[in-house]
Amino acid sequence: MSKEAKEKSFITPQSEDFSAWYIDVIRKADLMDYAPVRGCMVFKPDGYEIWELCQRELDRRFKETGHRNAYFPLFIPESFFQKEKEHVEGFNPELPWVTEAGGEKLEERLAIRPTSETMIGHMYAKWINSYRDLPLLINQWANVVRWEKRTLPFLRTSEFLWQEGHTAHETEAEAREETMRMLEIYRDFVENVLAIPVIVGQKTPSEKFAGAVDTYSIEAMMKDGKAVQAGTSHYLGTNFAEAFEIKYLDRENKHQYVHTTSWGVSTRLIGALIMVHGDDKGLALPPKVAPTQVIMIPIGPQKTREQVLAKTDEYYELLKQAGIRVRVDDRPDLSPGWKFNEYEMRGVPLRIELGPRDLENGQVVLATRLGEKRTVKQEDLLVEVQRTLEEIQQEMFNRALAFMKEHTYSVDTLDELKELFTEKRGFVYAGWCGSEACEHQVKLETKATSRNIPFIVDEHKSKCLVCEEQAKHTVVFARAY
Amino acid sequence: MSKEAKEKSFITPQSEDFSAWYIDVIRKADLMDYAPVRGCMVFKPDGYEIWELCQRELDRRFKETGHRNAYFPLFIPESFFQKEKEHVEGFNPELPWVTEAGGEKLEERLAIRPTSETMIGHMYAKWINSYRDLPLLINQWANVVRWEKRTLPFLRTSEFLWQEGHTAHETEAEAREETMRMLEIYRDFVENVLAIPVIVGQKTPSEKFAGAVDTYSIEAMMKDGKAVQAGTSHYLGTNFAEAFEIKYLDRENKHQYVHTTSWGVSTRLIGALIMVHGDDKGLALPPKVAPTQVIMIPIGPQKTREQVLAKTDEYYELLKQAGIRVRVDDRPDLSPGWKFNEYEMRGVPLRIELGPRDLENGQVVLATRLGEKRTVKQEDLLVEVQRTLEEIQQEMFNRALAFMKEHTYSVDTLDELKELFTEKRGFVYAGWCGSEACEHQVKLETKATSRNIPFIVDEHKSKCLVCEEQAKHTVVFARAY
Repeated sequence: MSKEAKEKSFITPQSEDFSAWYIDVIRKADLMDYAPVRGCMVFKPDGYEIWELCQRELDRRFKETGHRNAYFPLFIPESFFQKEKEHVEGFNPELPWVTEAGGEKLEERLAIRPTSETMIGHMYAKWINSYRDLPLLINQWANVVRWEKRTLPFLRTSEFLWQEGHTAHETEAEAREETMRMLEIYRDFVENVLAIPVIVGQKTPSEKFAGAVDTYSIEAMMKDGKAVQAGTSHYLGTNFAEAFEIKYLDRENKHQYVHTTSWGVSTRLIGALIMVHGDDKGLALPPKVAPTQVIMIPIGPQKTREQVLAKTDEYYELLKQAGIRVRVDDRPDLSPGWKFNEYEMRGVPLRIELGPRDLENGQVVLATRLGEKRTVKQEDLLVEVQRTLEEIQQEMFNRALAFMKEHTYSVDTLDELKELFTEKRGFVYAGWCGSEACEHQVKLETKATSRNIPFIVDEHKSKCLVCEEQAKHTVVFARAY
Repeated sequence: MSKEAKEKSFITPQSEDFSAWYIDVIRKADLMDYAPVRGCMVFKPDGYEIWELCQRELDRRFKETGHRNAYFPLFIPESFFQKEKEHVEGFNPELPWVTEAGGEKLEERLAIRPTSETMIGHMYAKWINSYRDLPLLINQWANVVRWEKRTLPFLRTSEFLWQEGHTAHETEAEAREETMRMLEIYRDFVENVLAIPVIVGQKTPSEKFAGAVDTYSIEAMMKDGKAVQAGTSHYLGTNFAEAFEIKYLDRENKHQYVHTTSWGVSTRLIGALIMVHGDDKGLALPPKVAPTQVIMIPIGPQKTREQVLAKTDEYYELLKQAGIRVRVDDRPDLSPGWKFNEYEMRGVPLRIELGPRDLENGQVVLATRLGEKRTVKQEDLLVEVQRTLEEIQQEMFNRALAFMKEHTYSVDTLDELKELFTEKRGFVYAGWCGSEACEHQVKLETKATSRNIPFIVDEHKSKCLVCEEQAKHTVVFARAY
């Protein structure tokens, strides 16, 4: 096999080298390319379309809960970062700076936004005067930049795409309610649209967002047992309100600081999607975010081709009219077998095969990306396709959930955790006293970090895995992307 | 009246000061705010939603004609600009430069993209190998930056939002066909969705895009008689293909350069929308891009309030189910008169008034933003609303077209043009010999620029307005934003 042929056809098995598998899959499925700027990537149409489908689902949920979209500047003056101490410390090392523009040196350096709390804080201070202006519920779809040293396509790149919600409220209670509402929207979206089960919980202080009072996250498990933080929602208290003087006149005519929140998910979800559902055949996409949900492949010899194509067109129209994202591959110079492999590699959830024998028998063959194949009557086609897509969606979630459960462990001591990590990877529940030192010790000895403090745990641990003092929380530890 | 009250209620009349009117309207209708970065603006929800509606309409048209979305990096290495001579000369003065990132000085400066021909050219060179890879039809929705000295919200800002299509083709004929196809999509969108009539034509060489062989534009007339370039489509020939080595193996197995196109419209369309349809009452939005198409205002005394609100809710659901963007303003502390003015100022195309007498008589009052008012039977409400929205859309286009015609002139000499501009503003048709010197002379003496060479003209001019040599083209001149 030539080098090129090998490059085109070969996907490293997951069991051999998971990282190599990941890169092989995203390249072969044509989702991305590397850009000629350090740490940046190009979202090719097949990758970008997954993001468009995510956007549509999320945007609808944001609007249904009263949020509106807006757009704030890409550039943030350096002085803005200085106003919130933790925020500047957290983000400063990752900022790119514009120092010249329009042929002149700038008086003040401009950062490219890594997130927009500071810019939006500045604007909210102008817009909010009275309790009547609250709550203010705004979301932004945007590109952001964090200069990364080690990059990985979709999961960690210098520039990425995301949404960032920023809200302001009269009271802590309302702001906390909003923080939880958006966390739940993320959980619902990731579990029911991306078919990825998640652990919902609170970040430990050392892992929270720079400038937040409390950060909450959803954490997903990849097929190599590592974690991906799939979404975060922050209660920011009055930290940014105090830094940017966002005050309102309350119902008693007194000046008060607003309570703010922010929350975001990004194109790293695409990386998670691939690593949760993909296998040695390639990509596997849940129907709800698959750019192509159904691929139709007409088969059989030349003499019956016209008949088969006519029927294919008929079914294509039927499915398309019903709102299904369907495509036909009728290229005559490629074999059905080649096409079957190709669309399995590209993660298309459902394949319809239609040949002369099927026409005779009034039937159609449905083959799912999960390996099931069955024959259905032509008159039932639409209903069967819709039902099968729903089943695939559910089954992908079930499989991912089963995988997560199989790779979830519980330990009482750091030694047990170290022992576990010598041959296994996954989520590990353990008791934690609440001290940063113990958390750090875990990281140092196992490279695992606290993912979050889950809201729901099967069993509350009584002792800290490191110091063996009384446990304050039961925490999920894992190595993470 | 207090300063604040005056600020909130007063819109400068168009006839008094058109620029002041424009700023008053966009501020009062809450479409934007100034950002704390020079030349940048914030798109507030009411302004951004107009852009979202534009995006939806355009994106559908792009996809129906075979284009797919992708996303390319914000940063462009300095060396990329050097590769196309005209391009770098055109854009260099407007570029902001990132010179430091992640705490280090960069080896090569990175420009913030003003447009993406160079980055996309670099990627296309990697992606295109054979004629089988062509045509390559990609669009990008993105932010771009051009450091502007004199800025005007929506119409000219340092950062703005746009879409940029970039396509590559086997032959010049195909690329030129694409250039025209997209120009026609822009014309259709601007005329039939934004209700703005346009002049379609070709830019003169001095006004074309830096790096293009030919640039085509649609030009719209604002209510002050000035022009806004509402969209452009470029045939780039093999200029970028040669600069970035974008070659393909043709059907005879020979290496050829691809022919490329690019085309874009931006958030400046929002500025045009305001200046074409707005009046002394404020904004006026065509139904197809109005975030709120119908505002329902329940009226009447307290004792009938419950009944009226119940009916209002019923109609709200009826209209909403039918896909109409409807809202209800039932705030009890604000008078109907105040609300009427408010929503007229915000440009809502249609108002429904519903009071106790209407309930008794089984009727509803419809009042359009164009000043028409009529009573319809309750049972006809949905049909009447749909019909009225269509009528408003058409009538807004008709009025804008009539305005454009009234302010379109024809001259034979530069003196006539100078004389005309002493008291009038508008589009002026004149003959042009084709020399840059004559075009420049017009600009120097009248501040009018050649907008384009229209595809369709009523009367071909025989002599150049400046040198009186034989005219090569009939050109539209106007002062422009």
